[in-house]
Amino acid sequence: MDIALEEARRAAAAGEVPVGAVLTDATGAVLAVAGNRTEAEEDPAAHAEMLVLAQARAARGGKYLADCTLTVTLEPCAMCAGAIAAFRVKRVVFGAYDPKTGAVEHGPRVFFHATTHHKPEVIGGVRDSDCSALLKEFFAGFRSA
Amino acid sequence: MDIALEEARRAAAAGEVPVGAVLTDATGAVLAVAGNRTEAEEDPAAHAEMLVLAQARAARGGKYLADCTLTVTLEPCAMCAGAIAAFRVKRVVFGAYDPKTGAVEHGPRVFFHATTHHKPEVIGGVRDSDCSALLKEFFAGFRSA
Repeated sequence: MDIALEEARRAAAAGEVPVGAVLTDATGAVLAVAGNRTEAEEDPAAHAEMLVLAQARAARGGKYLADCTLTVTLEPCAMCAGAIAAFRVKRVVFGAYDPKTGAVEHGPRVFFHATTHHKPEVIGGVRDSDCSALLKEFFAGFRSA
Repeated sequence: MDIALEEARRAAAAGEVPVGAVLTDATGAVLAVAGNRTEAEEDPAAHAEMLVLAQARAARGGKYLADCTLTVTLEPCAMCAGAIAAFRVKRVVFGAYDPKTGAVEHGPRVFFHATTHHKPEVIGGVRDSDCSALLKEFFAGFRSA
């Protein structure tokens, strides 16, 4: 989560909503890191999770990331949770809970349906306060600007 | 839906699960067409919907596709439904219902939560039998092979 937090800080410094992600393999080796790039790319799909999934797949070849852990500072949205399932990621570790757009523990709860093809192990709330603090600080900056 | 069906047929001919999509703007002009390319790209995220969203955004510039209609032969999964919401697509027209992986009328029902940021107009079941027939024929081919 330290690496993901560092990516989130970089994102904030670049004017992006501060979310960072890291993808590691079964040995803990880092396959990909990314921060949110929706503003830089003008792409609503350029979430940190989508970027690390794409990078890791491209780097390794093959279709799936079934031995991997995706660590991200914010609860994934429906798009990212769906992609995590599609890539068959083994484990998802996330920081801050997101009652608004989160789709793992909130709203669509993408992994928790009878029809879910792939349900990763989910560990939420890891360093929640550090991850949340970055987001709160970022949005407070907007409000006071 | 004719264009989307044609893309789905092309996908089948290329050994892909036959799903096709087309993205049109407010005037009905076609901005992007694509078939599923998960096998060709070895990319579980290369669903027809993700491809047309990315193509249309790249072609037009700007972040959102708020005046657009996405037409696809199969009910979108959670990843694609989440992306459709992220791109603020105005209307989603889909063909075959998908009780297994569909996330619009089934399972996560991505657009139907109190927390949903963007809820597109949804029209499902358009030429359901034509769209389903392609999929059934494709998978029957596998079983008899």
